[in-house]
Amino acid sequence: MKSSLAQHIRAIEDYPKAGITFRDITPLLADGEAFGHTITHLAERYAEQGITRIVGIEARGFIFATALAYAMGVGFVPLRKPGKLPAKTISKSYQLEYGDDALEMHVDALSATDKVVIIDDLLATGGTVLAGIELIEQAGAELHECAFIITLNDLPGVQRLNDAAIPYYTLCEF
Amino acid sequence: MKSSLAQHIRAIEDYPKAGITFRDITPLLADGEAFGHTITHLAERYAEQGITRIVGIEARGFIFATALAYAMGVGFVPLRKPGKLPAKTISKSYQLEYGDDALEMHVDALSATDKVVIIDDLLATGGTVLAGIELIEQAGAELHECAFIITLNDLPGVQRLNDAAIPYYTLCEF
Repeated sequence: MKSSLAQHIRAIEDYPKAGITFRDITPLLADGEAFGHTITHLAERYAEQGITRIVGIEARGFIFATALAYAMGVGFVPLRKPGKLPAKTISKSYQLEYGDDALEMHVDALSATDKVVIIDDLLATGGTVLAGIELIEQAGAELHECAFIITLNDLPGVQRLNDAAIPYYTLCEF
Repeated sequence: MKSSLAQHIRAIEDYPKAGITFRDITPLLADGEAFGHTITHLAERYAEQGITRIVGIEARGFIFATALAYAMGVGFVPLRKPGKLPAKTISKSYQLEYGDDALEMHVDALSATDKVVIIDDLLATGGTVLAGIELIEQAGAELHECAFIITLNDLPGVQRLNDAAIPYYTLCEF
């Protein structure tokens, strides 16, 4: 499963800037069979673990998180950029290469009875997912595991998750 | 199905500004059974129609489109805000209440052999989905139907789709 996935990830050179190779997931998404295998594989991994919600990070995380939530028959919780969620939220800011950003979650989205998997398409610096994990913990919910479609091993996210003893799973490494 | 869905949509008064009632889908998403019924209902509607791709509009459209693509075993095509897709795109701008926005699609995402359903969470003014339909037509693909979770009947989107003879389906009307 893992080895065959990489052939559906397209390398785009010099995007978003010179010297960067962007890993484009749209060929994977366009292939119904490959996308289906990806989601079914994750659903099998998280079956019978007492998972109550799948948490997805805007916007590409939504793509995998909602399909997985459907496959598992559980609910989906979106983590969004500031100002996008209409009810009362909790917020966590994090650093980008230049400047800051933040993630928000509805304050009533999770509770102490929830056990969740958080999904994003990509683990790079780890800043976004660490902010998301903090929101899950603030809500009192239990994090079962982080799941990524792609991990970039030459960026600090892997080390930061290891240092924080946060369990994670990745389908494809570059 | 349609009548029971409305109880999972939360009304948020005065969001994003005074006098507006925002229809919040997050309680629907959080309820695994209600979200599952919504997706299964759409998958049954579009079964055996020769659909090859589900097209979703960033960001809330992704939520329903990817789960539906998974349920149907077909591919998913994202329509994104400008600058978010890494490969060569086609673009269509549209008017907002104040100013303009645009949608982009990878130029190789669809072809003349594709028959698609386009999904967004909400039909309001119709500007976004009409831009999306134009991208589908530019690519030479066939539009089978537009699907929305919510339609706001006092805004011009319904009339604009009717005037353009564009087939659409909605699960919940306000």
